[in-house]
Amino acid sequence: MMKALIYHGPGRRSWEETPDPQLIEPTDAIVRVDAVTICGTDLHILKGDVPTVEPGTILGHEAVGTVTATGNSVGTAKPGDRVLVSCISACGRCRYCRIGMFGQCLGGGWILGHRVNGTQAEHVRVPFADTSTHLLPDGVTDEAALMLADILPTAYEVGVLNGHVRPGDTVVIVGAGPIGLAAITTAQLFTPSHIVAVDPAPSRLEAAKQLGADLVVGAGDDPAGAIAELTRGLGADVAIEAVGLPETFELCTRLVRPGGHVANVGVHGTPATLHLEDLWIRNLTITTGLVDTYSTPTLLDMIAAGRLDPARFITHRFALQDMAAAYETFADPAATGALKVVLSRG
Amino acid sequence: MMKALIYHGPGRRSWEETPDPQLIEPTDAIVRVDAVTICGTDLHILKGDVPTVEPGTILGHEAVGTVTATGNSVGTAKPGDRVLVSCISACGRCRYCRIGMFGQCLGGGWILGHRVNGTQAEHVRVPFADTSTHLLPDGVTDEAALMLADILPTAYEVGVLNGHVRPGDTVVIVGAGPIGLAAITTAQLFTPSHIVAVDPAPSRLEAAKQLGADLVVGAGDDPAGAIAELTRGLGADVAIEAVGLPETFELCTRLVRPGGHVANVGVHGTPATLHLEDLWIRNLTITTGLVDTYSTPTLLDMIAAGRLDPARFITHRFALQDMAAAYETFADPAATGALKVVLSRG
Amino acid sequence: MMKALIYHGPGRRSWEETPDPQLIEPTDAIVRVDAVTICGTDLHILKGDVPTVEPGTILGHEAVGTVTATGNSVGTAKPGDRVLVSCISACGRCRYCRIGMFGQCLGGGWILGHRVNGTQAEHVRVPFADTSTHLLPDGVTDEAALMLADILPTAYEVGVLNGHVRPGDTVVIVGAGPIGLAAITTAQLFTPSHIVAVDPAPSRLEAAKQLGADLVVGAGDDPAGAIAELTRGLGADVAIEAVGLPETFELCTRLVRPGGHVANVGVHGTPATLHLEDLWIRNLTITTGLVDTYSTPTLLDMIAAGRLDPARFITHRFALQDMAAAYETFADPAATGALKVVLSRG
Amino acid sequence: MMKALIYHGPGRRSWEETPDPQLIEPTDAIVRVDAVTICGTDLHILKGDVPTVEPGTILGHEAVGTVTATGNSVGTAKPGDRVLVSCISACGRCRYCRIGMFGQCLGGGWILGHRVNGTQAEHVRVPFADTSTHLLPDGVTDEAALMLADILPTAYEVGVLNGHVRPGDTVVIVGAGPIGLAAITTAQLFTPSHIVAVDPAPSRLEAAKQLGADLVVGAGDDPAGAIAELTRGLGADVAIEAVGLPETFELCTRLVRPGGHVANVGVHGTPATLHLEDLWIRNLTITTGLVDTYSTPTLLDMIAAGRLDPARFITHRFALQDMAAAYETFADPAATGALKVVLSRG
Repeated sequence: MMKALIYHGPGRRSWEETPDPQLIEPTDAIVRVDAVTICGTDLHILKGDVPTVEPGTILGHEAVGTVTATGNSVGTAKPGDRVLVSCISACGRCRYCRIGMFGQCLGGGWILGHRVNGTQAEHVRVPFADTSTHLLPDGVTDEAALMLADILPTAYEVGVLNGHVRPGDTVVIVGAGPIGLAAITTAQLFTPSHIVAVDPAPSRLEAAKQLGADLVVGAGDDPAGAIAELTRGLGADVAIEAVGLPETFELCTRLVRPGGHVANVGVHGTPATLHLEDLWIRNLTITTGLVDTYSTPTLLDMIAAGRLDPARFITHRFALQDMAAAYETFADPAATGALKVVLSRG
Repeated sequence: MMKALIYHGPGRRSWEETPDPQLIEPTDAIVRVDAVTICGTDLHILKGDVPTVEPGTILGHEAVGTVTATGNSVGTAKPGDRVLVSCISACGRCRYCRIGMFGQCLGGGWILGHRVNGTQAEHVRVPFADTSTHLLPDGVTDEAALMLADILPTAYEVGVLNGHVRPGDTVVIVGAGPIGLAAITTAQLFTPSHIVAVDPAPSRLEAAKQLGADLVVGAGDDPAGAIAELTRGLGADVAIEAVGLPETFELCTRLVRPGGHVANVGVHGTPATLHLEDLWIRNLTITTGLVDTYSTPTLLDMIAAGRLDPARFITHRFALQDMAAAYETFADPAATGALKVVLSRG
Repeated sequence: MMKALIYHGPGRRSWEETPDPQLIEPTDAIVRVDAVTICGTDLHILKGDVPTVEPGTILGHEAVGTVTATGNSVGTAKPGDRVLVSCISACGRCRYCRIGMFGQCLGGGWILGHRVNGTQAEHVRVPFADTSTHLLPDGVTDEAALMLADILPTAYEVGVLNGHVRPGDTVVIVGAGPIGLAAITTAQLFTPSHIVAVDPAPSRLEAAKQLGADLVVGAGDDPAGAIAELTRGLGADVAIEAVGLPETFELCTRLVRPGGHVANVGVHGTPATLHLEDLWIRNLTITTGLVDTYSTPTLLDMIAAGRLDPARFITHRFALQDMAAAYETFADPAATGALKVVLSRG
Repeated sequence: MMKALIYHGPGRRSWEETPDPQLIEPTDAIVRVDAVTICGTDLHILKGDVPTVEPGTILGHEAVGTVTATGNSVGTAKPGDRVLVSCISACGRCRYCRIGMFGQCLGGGWILGHRVNGTQAEHVRVPFADTSTHLLPDGVTDEAALMLADILPTAYEVGVLNGHVRPGDTVVIVGAGPIGLAAITTAQLFTPSHIVAVDPAPSRLEAAKQLGADLVVGAGDDPAGAIAELTRGLGADVAIEAVGLPETFELCTRLVRPGGHVANVGVHGTPATLHLEDLWIRNLTITTGLVDTYSTPTLLDMIAAGRLDPARFITHRFALQDMAAAYETFADPAATGALKVVLSRG
């Protein structure tokens, strides 16, 4: 038996005893969880926003751990390996996996803590282990690697790469929560001239500045005016939506110049209005997406090479058994200032 | 004095005497109009939908003609040249022109028949003549070239290229009017496996078939079902919107597979709803755009090489002085079956 | 026991009895060979040019067949499936496979008929079966599919896609053997304005014309002059090298315009001279490559959709047991006119 | 009359009196030279390596200055403007200019100090002034801007962008002279994990380190071994040739991994050997090129935004009249340590 965070329907979770996971498919691995975090999506699930999660499911889709057992056909991962467990499980065989769109994997995708038991537990069964875990290079800490399970590749692929950030660009990032801050961090890999962060919370704007935003726009300020001043009236080259609300998405479409990119990263629950009567003529490119994690090996190497320090997003640390307290801290960022919380095995 | 089609405010146009155009800037040319056509946009202007057009303006932004005079600094075009007058005037010097985004030219763009007098006349002043006209190669007819003034580069750049059509793709084109048919024609330059045309008008679906659509979907049919059958349930790789209505745009976003492209070509007057609650996870790319005409030289060469035959879009021919009749024919396609009409100098 | 074509060292091959292949790895499949072909590379091996092939190896890296057995972890292929056996075996897990560069797979790549026993046999063991075979859609014949085992994806990926062929281009293909003809065929998927074929053999130029070349240049003709005439003196947009000799490669570098692409497909045995004293200023892009087969699923779909008919390359047909005669025919194209030969199970 | 540096045939130059330049074409501007530099290419011309330069020509293709007169059709530049004079003159109208390949401009390209009188003078006539000069933003010094006349856009476009440097890459730069150092500087705009500089001169390796190389390889060291260690044996992602010799080019082709890029920036006088017998299978992309200067506006903005500090390349400063001394210093970097020298109006 082990301890795990189990979803019992909207509003109900508990850290409780449950059977250890077992190998089911020959492509599975069992991983002992050494470090795990909580995602905004987990809070959405707990609100009941993701009805595909059935009560009884162990939550969590991000972990760093140690392989303890592998199925017959697992060829890369082996017991004792220190691995990153990615939020995306990729079969490696389907039409989408063959073209690197692992997030759309026809047999996998985002399934951990969603359609199968997840990582907020002492042990986790990881499907398609060879193509869904990443061996940690020496010198990469558990905490740094853990930020690559979801938040950094998501911000980088769906925000920065989809948004086509280029050297010299003016990039505006709407929303300075964990994902927005990860976008600020990874946008700098392309040396934009200006990074503008928009968020109503002063504490988040302060974090945005520390992570590299050179202009911050708070509640009551005029983001369009601020960007016009930076860009001789043209508008931003790229706007990254990192909130998930109609109004922030619509703001993004107003802030970019003709020929610019709007990269949506936020998880949306309601439709937005697309002002095609203005936008049809403006050569906009709008992208949406779930992370594919194709960038994860590169980002891991960049941590090892000292070019990226994602542990800066971690504001709170807990022991694994203090899962309930970690959830409370993470769920109330206004009061706690939480960005990412990490729970570690003792 | 010459004759020209003058806009006198919503609902009012006349083919009347007006002074000949004169050279104003050293970069201007005067072109005698040999062939001209009417665009759906001209009808929008006449409805009053484009308030930036002032009464007294000569309409028209598409022509083939002969250069009769050039300003001092015009270096490429010269009197006697047979040229295509493009719908986009490009200064060649501004930030947008320098990167090939001529449609967004800070001093030009779509100005003919909009902000300055246009081509539906016996003569027209063409600003920035060196970078806004194209010398016609031998063997390219006036009629074929005329289709490159707007409709073909628009469908090709804003539909096919922005939509990233690739060999083997399933491409759905919503709207089989002139622009949609031009998209069907130019999509074939990339040899998609399937071209699906969606339109309520049986006559337009018939035209779509003749131009290369291998599946047509009419009113009351189920485009999503038809495309699912072609694509093993995945959806289209590319959807091209060639109507300009919220419902057709929204249909496009439902018809593409995860990872697909929606290329909006239609001119919209009202907002559309973007169902981000479904689309955020589907890795969509949505593009909008005004034509830049960067493809015009290539398309001209392809006509000369026999790889493209755009005269197939022409259904009706008139003498230049029969402008009023041509407008009436073009404005009532349901009755006349008009696609593109051509008016030629006698 | 089964029959197979075994390499016994330079100049020595025999069609002889040998044990049936057995499953070794859990990712293997055994495939009964229904149709197989011979590649120019097999002739190179027989000359002793590929010393990594050890005597005793069964040759052949192209086949269509029926799965008869699968290892424990094979999840997609199953007994009874009619499959294409690709020339590239891809583990699906390594750094290169994860980015779609299957040809450079660290544990696979081109191994069939090279480092492990190949397909010129009644049965073959196929490593990494899930990611190295392709299920044949209904309506695709064995013969058509067989051309996708190597020749078509090679010409398409390494020639046409690496060469960045675009609508309206002038494309010159140097060498009109099977690979060159496959490049002529697949270049047309992008509707170039001109396809120029260069080869000393009149029979091959005749085949080039029939497959779509609109200009052919034989021995004693001047390819540079012919291309200059087509392109107003600029040069070809793309040159595809499909021979594998220094002089044909060097010719390609002379035939392209500033900003053009040279795509090398030929297998070379000796160095070439790169005239950087002329080329440094000409903005050339030169590419080399082994096929990755990422395009194979698309090409299969295009055959099923009737957009590609690769059976046109087949000039001679044999029964499987007539392997020796097939080799003799294929090895002497000047006398036999052979392009591709197919051997089929009775 | 003014003073200028005139080429009098191989080995002969003098700083002498010569008539002031006059406007010839309506697209010309006359610019008073405020700061000018010397390029390695000027030394090549003086050796007689560039026979297209006729005796009597004023050398120099890089300057910052003040517009004093403009032709009738110059619309953007105006007297009093502080401008960068680019090494590339672009007509803005030809087929190449229309697609942003200004370096290949059919009527311009590199002509200053080559086919027409250049910038090493008190005044210079600048052809196609609207599309060949760039207005300096406030806060950008003459010295910083001067580095954008040639060296920075060359290293960036022809080295870094053609080489497709990406975040996390291992980039090797062979040659740490001014161009190589500019490549080291601009490669960092994409945050590679490792930048390796190869040069026999210890002083240049020291400069390379200070500008951002994290590994330097000198004479007698083993660059392949050093790179294999950094990349788990795979090789560099990108190699940039910044010397112009056969052996350094060939070294680059050996240092990159399968799938890697070799970007040639060096000016070559003799052919190199391309080892296609090894490289045909390695999926290499090799590029050559003259700078197009399409990146110059972006680089200017990046200086203004504080993201780039190109004045770091300047080692020596002179008054304009000390042209002879400046040439002597620049021509003997082993003794003087010169990288870039700047000559300024008093």
